[in-house]
Amino acid sequence: MHFKKSLGSDNHSGIHPEFLKSIIDVNNSHAPSYGTDSVTKCALKLFKKNFGSQSESFFVFNGTAANVLCLKALIKSYQSVICTDISHLNLDECAAPEAIIGCKLEVIKSVDGKLTAPQIEEKLTRLGDQHHTQPGCVSITQPTEVGTVYSIEELQDIKKTCLKHSLKLHIDGARYILAAHYLNLTLLELTNIAQPDALSFGGTKNGLLFGEAVVFFNKDLAKDFKFLRKQAMQLPSKSRFLAAQFIKLFELWPEIAGHEHSMAKYLLQKLEPFKKIKIKHPVQANSVFPSVPRAWIKPLKNKCFFYVWDETNWTLRWMCSFDTTKQDIDFFIQAINELSDGSADGLNEL
Amino acid sequence: MHFKKSLGSDNHSGIHPEFLKSIIDVNNSHAPSYGTDSVTKCALKLFKKNFGSQSESFFVFNGTAANVLCLKALIKSYQSVICTDISHLNLDECAAPEAIIGCKLEVIKSVDGKLTAPQIEEKLTRLGDQHHTQPGCVSITQPTEVGTVYSIEELQDIKKTCLKHSLKLHIDGARYILAAHYLNLTLLELTNIAQPDALSFGGTKNGLLFGEAVVFFNKDLAKDFKFLRKQAMQLPSKSRFLAAQFIKLFELWPEIAGHEHSMAKYLLQKLEPFKKIKIKHPVQANSVFPSVPRAWIKPLKNKCFFYVWDETNWTLRWMCSFDTTKQDIDFFIQAINELSDGSADGLNEL
Amino acid sequence: MHFKKSLGSDNHSGIHPEFLKSIIDVNNSHAPSYGTDSVTKCALKLFKKNFGSQSESFFVFNGTAANVLCLKALIKSYQSVICTDISHLNLDECAAPEAIIGCKLEVIKSVDGKLTAPQIEEKLTRLGDQHHTQPGCVSITQPTEVGTVYSIEELQDIKKTCLKHSLKLHIDGARYILAAHYLNLTLLELTNIAQPDALSFGGTKNGLLFGEAVVFFNKDLAKDFKFLRKQAMQLPSKSRFLAAQFIKLFELWPEIAGHEHSMAKYLLQKLEPFKKIKIKHPVQANSVFPSVPRAWIKPLKNKCFFYVWDETNWTLRWMCSFDTTKQDIDFFIQAINELSDGSADGLNEL
Amino acid sequence: MHFKKSLGSDNHSGIHPEFLKSIIDVNNSHAPSYGTDSVTKCALKLFKKNFGSQSESFFVFNGTAANVLCLKALIKSYQSVICTDISHLNLDECAAPEAIIGCKLEVIKSVDGKLTAPQIEEKLTRLGDQHHTQPGCVSITQPTEVGTVYSIEELQDIKKTCLKHSLKLHIDGARYILAAHYLNLTLLELTNIAQPDALSFGGTKNGLLFGEAVVFFNKDLAKDFKFLRKQAMQLPSKSRFLAAQFIKLFELWPEIAGHEHSMAKYLLQKLEPFKKIKIKHPVQANSVFPSVPRAWIKPLKNKCFFYVWDETNWTLRWMCSFDTTKQDIDFFIQAINELSDGSADGLNEL
Repeated sequence: MHFKKSLGSDNHSGIHPEFLKSIIDVNNSHAPSYGTDSVTKCALKLFKKNFGSQSESFFVFNGTAANVLCLKALIKSYQSVICTDISHLNLDECAAPEAIIGCKLEVIKSVDGKLTAPQIEEKLTRLGDQHHTQPGCVSITQPTEVGTVYSIEELQDIKKTCLKHSLKLHIDGARYILAAHYLNLTLLELTNIAQPDALSFGGTKNGLLFGEAVVFFNKDLAKDFKFLRKQAMQLPSKSRFLAAQFIKLFELWPEIAGHEHSMAKYLLQKLEPFKKIKIKHPVQANSVFPSVPRAWIKPLKNKCFFYVWDETNWTLRWMCSFDTTKQDIDFFIQAINELSDGSADGLNEL
Repeated sequence: MHFKKSLGSDNHSGIHPEFLKSIIDVNNSHAPSYGTDSVTKCALKLFKKNFGSQSESFFVFNGTAANVLCLKALIKSYQSVICTDISHLNLDECAAPEAIIGCKLEVIKSVDGKLTAPQIEEKLTRLGDQHHTQPGCVSITQPTEVGTVYSIEELQDIKKTCLKHSLKLHIDGARYILAAHYLNLTLLELTNIAQPDALSFGGTKNGLLFGEAVVFFNKDLAKDFKFLRKQAMQLPSKSRFLAAQFIKLFELWPEIAGHEHSMAKYLLQKLEPFKKIKIKHPVQANSVFPSVPRAWIKPLKNKCFFYVWDETNWTLRWMCSFDTTKQDIDFFIQAINELSDGSADGLNEL
Repeated sequence: MHFKKSLGSDNHSGIHPEFLKSIIDVNNSHAPSYGTDSVTKCALKLFKKNFGSQSESFFVFNGTAANVLCLKALIKSYQSVICTDISHLNLDECAAPEAIIGCKLEVIKSVDGKLTAPQIEEKLTRLGDQHHTQPGCVSITQPTEVGTVYSIEELQDIKKTCLKHSLKLHIDGARYILAAHYLNLTLLELTNIAQPDALSFGGTKNGLLFGEAVVFFNKDLAKDFKFLRKQAMQLPSKSRFLAAQFIKLFELWPEIAGHEHSMAKYLLQKLEPFKKIKIKHPVQANSVFPSVPRAWIKPLKNKCFFYVWDETNWTLRWMCSFDTTKQDIDFFIQAINELSDGSADGLNEL
Repeated sequence: MHFKKSLGSDNHSGIHPEFLKSIIDVNNSHAPSYGTDSVTKCALKLFKKNFGSQSESFFVFNGTAANVLCLKALIKSYQSVICTDISHLNLDECAAPEAIIGCKLEVIKSVDGKLTAPQIEEKLTRLGDQHHTQPGCVSITQPTEVGTVYSIEELQDIKKTCLKHSLKLHIDGARYILAAHYLNLTLLELTNIAQPDALSFGGTKNGLLFGEAVVFFNKDLAKDFKFLRKQAMQLPSKSRFLAAQFIKLFELWPEIAGHEHSMAKYLLQKLEPFKKIKIKHPVQANSVFPSVPRAWIKPLKNKCFFYVWDETNWTLRWMCSFDTTKQDIDFFIQAINELSDGSADGLNEL
């Protein structure tokens, strides 16, 4: 019998066996805590290898913390963060940026989850006016929340605009490895192109038990960050278990990202015959955003869990994980097939 | 050959094999995230069993977060938290209570790490005076930072004082199981005696990979806490791996706490012959606080890592973990023995 | 010769002679500070008379503080405030709500500066979802930032919607007296209709040297507010000088509001012949929002200062103060007249 | 008949007639708001004249704000402020530093209200330890809360220690003019000796209606302070009325400070015969701190209001204002005389 996996989120999957093994491997006797152990030191060397020798990295517990603490290091509370309307930062952090940084988000209406350089410039109003929060940073998500990837040109335009207006640049890279894979770049190459001041480098959604990293590309930003992290309640004690997983992630990421993306592409390809399904965004990472006939949603969800992304047009989010298989997708497509053959909404109606 | 373990901290140890096994056991396929999975539900039932049916519990990542978020739920920013001078809250959270809650700590000079009911009353000054922060909560650590345990009578006196003056009560229970063990009580019995409004229930220092719990004893406090937790960047996504460890902790805690305490007692007993070593606090949990001749510190540290607790009188902290063995202690005592026989500081001088 | 007054803002005017006199009158010898003096007590009685016996009022220094502290008392940081896109709260407080409360603003696109009951309901999404900030309060400005006044029916609809969804209601009443005047209601009648939970009652823009009031309509909200105010750095020491001005304001407000509104209406009437001037919003308070030919702006500003409200369509804001006279307006109209007769943009062209 | 003035606080007095006159004088027609008017510009020039050309000054509403915002500009939230146990900052701001800055205060036990350079050094522990807040700033009050004045040598020692350890220096100068008077220095001379990074320069307690100034001695600190001030709800709109008073204060301060100090000295001299009265601190500013027989307190307070400073030893605070007269003091001494002659506590008993 086939066990149904979720298409709900890439954090519905568990721990990648290799990451679990890495935890087990370093669970031998005692080690100094709070990041002073040899495994952490080894991992931090790999961060420098993958993000540049001038980078400085810090583990935190989750993605909310990675995003918020990157930004807290980049801006003052009276500066605003320019981001998209659908950014995780804006919609899914329960106002943590506002609470922890005390800043305002300046929201840009996105297309395919992206903001553009001209849109940034439109937000640069009332500069120097003490009554109005001042733009301090642009935050983009790469890949975006709807599974698209900023192109090299888009990244360069955004960076150029940031430099022109003295804006810091942050990348929410919860699924950064998928962007590197899609653009066929190493992490270092992608980072050298995008030139962020700070990067949230994700682990959890790519198979780690837990753990994200705050990566700074300027030693001044990193200088006192350890105090900021501790005060923000994000200093892990048994750091070696985060470190070991990231060491393995730097080895396995091309394989993991490659697999996740290929599963999304496979799903996309299998959906092609279903004319009632519209694909809302290019599939460039590990998710597919289809709109489907409303009546299909309930029966499909019974087969395999997923989220409705947008109730106004019944767009869904189907997301592949490191352990999603062709078999899982075939099973799901079979369910669609059955609905599609039915009376009310089936293809045969068309 | 004997492998040297640290006496530095109980978070220098790794993951207890049974907790690691519990992680492995629930790492099967997919599960809903953010606490909606069946393992978490099962764990939360056990929390109710161990802390009372009216309790409501929430996982967070670390002890700083458990303490700070308990207090954030209990008080307003213009209220102060009465705690001891040596409390973790005061000394070791890098001012997280001030930053995250915005409150002032009112610090009491402790004896054996404890504060007393009369000392609380001395802090109740300028009540109603708008210029002065108002006492809102008492926070005690059980067992204390110096390995002592509040007695039943002490707990009752403190609670009585809190009730009399409408003060909330918080317990920092990073090593709560050791207090229950020492007092020969179940977790529920200890909690029913102490009657805290909120408890930080520790996991990491007792062998978990990571994870602490915020436990409220009043449903009103718990009502909106999920939003507070998320906004404070403490919502774990793959919750089942925290839950599984806590499920196991509720089974194994008497054994773990018993072992840790017995190791501390064994160490204490072995120290008795050394007249140059003074024990500074009763040994009621898993740590021993000796003062030793200053010249011993460096060579001893070379044998086995530990922290100097108080440089003004060369008091050290030796702390046992779940995996500390008699062999480890014998090895350490042997090192002391060698120093003690030496010329400058040895016993034979006396 | 005629002295040119500003049409820039009603805080460009100075102190109303009667308010200045009230300051001088209470400047006799010593009085207790921080609100315990007899003048303050007398003023607070008048607040109860004007806002209802269940109301509790507190002086603060400025409008930013009045708005932010009202809201801080009404919501938790993980709750959002629903307000308009052009609200002072959103555009002109330099992100003080975010910094001091830690909350997110949920912004509604306004028409004539107003939000509507159905628009509030559209914002009530993701209720109970811990990842998303939860609507906690609606804040309206009465009169609005563009000089319009919510009608009785609009206020009733908004309150009904708030009650239905357990939302608190706040009114930014920096120019509240103008709304009462326009609706031909007493302050108490207007307040009983609108039923806010908290009101920022403005003084500075109506001729006070300085001073606003936070008015709560629920004693529970007011209970500990004095601590919140002090901690937020808003406790005035020589309170009697604020109190004396408010005492006088309760006497003179119908006259002041009446005069300011009549000046705006007079200006509006005088603008009627100029076909190139479009009035963008109904004139219901003390301001007129015209769009004028772009070439007029510079020469007009040289005659009399004002702000460009919206550069995208060259809408201006002309605002009358307690001391604006018909003579001032005639002088300004004369300047328009001269421009209008000119070659490029004059009426004679049409 | 003699009118009784308060000895309670120098903010029990009202507005100095000259400051009131300065308000009246600038209350002519309209002026730009928020600090862009000519009166404010003129005042800011005088600030540069009195505090050095490199200084940058900003008006705020009250002393709490001046202190807290100076410090917010000087330190990060994970840095601590070293101050005395009796500092206004520690005791009388209702935890505003904690709430607004998010920092911890490191409290030094004062003698005569002062801290010393060696005491600062004792606080410099756990430097670089991420678990512990890091000393970032020293804040002294000049004159102190008990009416003493740091000597030139004491100031130089403190500054030297600050420089040695890269600590910023803040002066709470709510009554700064009294220190300059006592040391027979100009404001500029005193400031050049003390070399603070930021100064809270007080107005209210020296006869202003309201108003304090934040003075920075480093343009970098001042650069974005206007945004910080606005976000902290401390931007005054009708700035000219603050400016006019400060302009006059720069003219009159020697006279005002001289008078206040001479009144305190006169009071001190008149107290000499009363052997039951012990003077607790040198009288170097405008206050006298006597301990008196407990039975005298109530009848004395009936004659003239004052505060009990320390209930543990019945120390009182008697404070002179700009308008305290010899006649006021003679009247008060007469009351003491009557008590002193009486049966239970009189001098004749001794």
